[in-house]
Amino acid sequence: MELTSIYHRPESEYAYLYEKDKMHIRIRTKKNDIKAVVLHYGDSVIFHEDSYEESVAMEKVATDLWFDYWQSEVSVRFARIQYIFEVEDFEGQTVLYGDRGVVENTSEHLNFFMNGFKLPYFHEADRCKVPEWVAKTVWYQIFPERFANGNPEISPKDSLPWDSTIIPQNFDFFGGDLQGIIDQLDYLQDLGITGLYLCPIFEAPSNHKYDTLDYFEIDRHFGDKDVFRQLVEEAHNRGMKVMLDAVFNHIGHQSPQWQDVLEKGEQSVYKDWFHIQEFPVTKENLGNNRDLNYHAFAFQGHMPKLNTANPEVKDYLLSIATYWIEHFDIDAWRLDVANEIDHQFWRAFQQAVLAKKSDLYILGEIWHSSQPWLNGDEFHAVMNYPLSESIKDYFLRGRMATSQFISDINSQSMYYKQQIAEAMFNLLDSHDTERILTTANGDVQLVKAALACLFLQRGTPCIYYGTEVGLSGGHDPGCRRVMPWEDELQNKELLTFVKQLIQLRKDISEMIQKGRLTLEELQSDVISLRWTYQEQSLHAIFNHSKEQISLKVNTLDLMSNCQITAESLSVLPNGFAIFRDKDKVLG
Amino acid sequence: MELTSIYHRPESEYAYLYEKDKMHIRIRTKKNDIKAVVLHYGDSVIFHEDSYEESVAMEKVATDLWFDYWQSEVSVRFARIQYIFEVEDFEGQTVLYGDRGVVENTSEHLNFFMNGFKLPYFHEADRCKVPEWVAKTVWYQIFPERFANGNPEISPKDSLPWDSTIIPQNFDFFGGDLQGIIDQLDYLQDLGITGLYLCPIFEAPSNHKYDTLDYFEIDRHFGDKDVFRQLVEEAHNRGMKVMLDAVFNHIGHQSPQWQDVLEKGEQSVYKDWFHIQEFPVTKENLGNNRDLNYHAFAFQGHMPKLNTANPEVKDYLLSIATYWIEHFDIDAWRLDVANEIDHQFWRAFQQAVLAKKSDLYILGEIWHSSQPWLNGDEFHAVMNYPLSESIKDYFLRGRMATSQFISDINSQSMYYKQQIAEAMFNLLDSHDTERILTTANGDVQLVKAALACLFLQRGTPCIYYGTEVGLSGGHDPGCRRVMPWEDELQNKELLTFVKQLIQLRKDISEMIQKGRLTLEELQSDVISLRWTYQEQSLHAIFNHSKEQISLKVNTLDLMSNCQITAESLSVLPNGFAIFRDKDKVLG
Repeated sequence: MELTSIYHRPESEYAYLYEKDKMHIRIRTKKNDIKAVVLHYGDSVIFHEDSYEESVAMEKVATDLWFDYWQSEVSVRFARIQYIFEVEDFEGQTVLYGDRGVVENTSEHLNFFMNGFKLPYFHEADRCKVPEWVAKTVWYQIFPERFANGNPEISPKDSLPWDSTIIPQNFDFFGGDLQGIIDQLDYLQDLGITGLYLCPIFEAPSNHKYDTLDYFEIDRHFGDKDVFRQLVEEAHNRGMKVMLDAVFNHIGHQSPQWQDVLEKGEQSVYKDWFHIQEFPVTKENLGNNRDLNYHAFAFQGHMPKLNTANPEVKDYLLSIATYWIEHFDIDAWRLDVANEIDHQFWRAFQQAVLAKKSDLYILGEIWHSSQPWLNGDEFHAVMNYPLSESIKDYFLRGRMATSQFISDINSQSMYYKQQIAEAMFNLLDSHDTERILTTANGDVQLVKAALACLFLQRGTPCIYYGTEVGLSGGHDPGCRRVMPWEDELQNKELLTFVKQLIQLRKDISEMIQKGRLTLEELQSDVISLRWTYQEQSLHAIFNHSKEQISLKVNTLDLMSNCQITAESLSVLPNGFAIFRDKDKVLG
Repeated sequence: MELTSIYHRPESEYAYLYEKDKMHIRIRTKKNDIKAVVLHYGDSVIFHEDSYEESVAMEKVATDLWFDYWQSEVSVRFARIQYIFEVEDFEGQTVLYGDRGVVENTSEHLNFFMNGFKLPYFHEADRCKVPEWVAKTVWYQIFPERFANGNPEISPKDSLPWDSTIIPQNFDFFGGDLQGIIDQLDYLQDLGITGLYLCPIFEAPSNHKYDTLDYFEIDRHFGDKDVFRQLVEEAHNRGMKVMLDAVFNHIGHQSPQWQDVLEKGEQSVYKDWFHIQEFPVTKENLGNNRDLNYHAFAFQGHMPKLNTANPEVKDYLLSIATYWIEHFDIDAWRLDVANEIDHQFWRAFQQAVLAKKSDLYILGEIWHSSQPWLNGDEFHAVMNYPLSESIKDYFLRGRMATSQFISDINSQSMYYKQQIAEAMFNLLDSHDTERILTTANGDVQLVKAALACLFLQRGTPCIYYGTEVGLSGGHDPGCRRVMPWEDELQNKELLTFVKQLIQLRKDISEMIQKGRLTLEELQSDVISLRWTYQEQSLHAIFNHSKEQISLKVNTLDLMSNCQITAESLSVLPNGFAIFRDKDKVLG
């Protein structure tokens, strides 16, 4: 038994309240090293008289290349729990694992209170909660300058023609606006979208608007507050949520606050709004300059970093956060560069926005593993780039082994508390990445397989505008081409597929939220993906091999209890098939 | 190489800001499995152009029975850090370990940004900070009803005689009070005490006062606000801090709030101040009753649990917490049953009390490992019972092997961020445990060894009243005998020893706070404990064997660069010797 591989951490993704009075307890052991884990648990006061009240065999819920993960869902009568793990290997040897590490499996050790892990009291106030609607939502990300031009009168003067074959340059404008989005809400509704994620829409000089000039105004080239209010209302009428982008890590160079610092230097009332090392602040060579004498986003001097620990700055930013909820009824905030802002700020942010709208969704932009932000008091989820990378490496770049891919998915399924996983923002491309059709070297079939896989993951999936009609494009700014609205420029077959996929996802959203996912390498480079929940099941086959595969119907039966009408199923290379109950639904 | 044993967790005790701009990074590997760990790190933006800027060999700082612990202290120029570990075994094989787990050691993996761990930005607001004075403090815990009777006029009517040979019963009174403490401040100053920890002093019917009736009043049998104000002033004049006991998990049965619930039931304005399952609430059989229909501390119906998530309760308790700071200038709060109160409450508590006094010390009563409360925004430390248990098991109960003891100390030294370890409240006995002379079966030499070991640990040590003069006593209420003030009832030799030990500790407090501790089993059951810091060093020998041992001076020289005058040193069984620089200082 490899004792040094056994791992658990109280009050983390390994031990947390999932629902009121329902606790999830996990433990990780070396892969194939442990035969069984028994969880002993009970009230921590009763323990002193009667030891642990209950014992339960833990279930092995996931396996990756290195580890087995075990989980139990438990409840207790008096809101206090103490627990310890009894770990058994294949030779029948057992140890106890608790708050003081591994100890011999004796009744003395079992009954010594300091060996027990504890969740001392189940506090609903501390439980990590996410808005109910998120897990059922299908998102659509819009880069407003490039989605649709509904009001050419307010377009920037030197806007380029609305031509999706133009590869934009960094400082180009095309004239997209909020009226354009309103005009296309029927299109989005028909597609099945239930959440809109808009990149920044506040007054800012650039086309991307991440260099905010005035957080209280809609950018003049996008529209005004009336048209934004109309956009939210029309979206709500269609059952769509609206998420805005909060760029609070830094502010635009042209903002009055930074301009005041430029003008007045140390005399500026805004000097403590930033992280300034010396005055006067650097005024030239602002692009990617390591010699700036103030902190900026990624050495970009035109985006000076805000000092979010300054109470004035905090109040200012929180007033923005609540303003757009209170006056425009937005449903979610996506937080730009969220990891570079302090935790104290985000805790205050959550309190402020949830006080205005208790089911507002708070989504952080973080690319790496994000446990420190997902304890329930900061974000509800992050943009799930680790998942994106795994799916793209496997399906689109063809540079990942099937075993590694399955390992990645399983490993990531254990990153966070389950309620967080249910709300994770799953995406394949965005304004910050190349488009997936480009990653796939133009192979639409690969894009379909990747999207199908994405939509079958726990979390809330998002389509980047245009990806559904086959728009391509490299890294920023290539991924920001205008949306092609002409029929002949849209891949209608891909569009139909995406529509079906969204419908499927909506049909099975409860199973994906609450069910159990199992991944297997059915035969070399063929993945079987299976969801089960109560009496329901869904089964998908992804053929990553070079050969067409044929699977007998009874093989599928054995795996998933699904039934299909034909006696065998053929899946081409890069093909896939998704079955639900008695029917093939997509492939 | 046992890859599944390698462990690191960002933003935990494995990766944290120690001082402004100074980050501690730790990693744990299987014991004796890894030859070297190199930490690659640098700015996370520069990384995209230039990979990691720096590489440093990590230092192996501790080893326990299962693991080696490695640590580096690093700084970066731009407040952003990305890092990855290169781990090498004794065969020269290497792997990289980062945010996506273990990967092959290739330049492609090294240079893939998603493999890096991150502390995205060094925020002083998020840094875990502890009050500077704590690490230099030597505490004395007083159970006020039993320490000294300075004003017999206010003693309870049926107080028993002040006789330290009486073993108290649960409901006895003896008449100790605050004037008694004032009267003995010279004694405590002479002993070397610099911090007083008083068990509860607010109005309450019991002798222990953990069943508070009125948090805004001094218990009538202890004195009044004037005498308490005088106590704080006189303590401060002697350079002593004063810590009070905040019993916020539950309130007393006789409090007006609970009495109102008893009287008015569901109509009571206080009904949501508690965790009540049904009305009317249980009124009989309140002791250890599992059938109570409200939550109480440990099934003790006369201590109903407060609902600290209720904003009214929160405001009420925070007003108490700030009142005693604002009006009486107390220096610290010890938080009773701290683990059973919600984290949200404790975060609000920290903000409220530090706003009144920025260097107030916040100490939680938690008996188990306490990482979730020690992230910097709740407590500064907890009562270090794991350390107590190890020292008592080894020195007093004689039921722990030397190798296990060394393992425990090393393992515990890695439990928390270093600044937390520096402020940990280290104790051997308290009002909640038997007294150590009793644990030692009356063997004073064992008590001395255990105290010596305690005082040589990182953290802030505490003496429980009377232990310094050889008071004995079993578990509560036996450990709560009155303080013997008569010379003939005090062990003066032990008292002198404790005084010397306190002085030694104060002399070396900086070394213990900032230096490096090394423990070795010098020969069978003989421990060498060594502190080194800059040019200083301190060396102690604990002889846990059955034989007298003789150590040659040059052996000691080799180990610690200390010099002693005699050519050899003899240490009796259960004996110990402490050396500093050129002299033997205690033994």
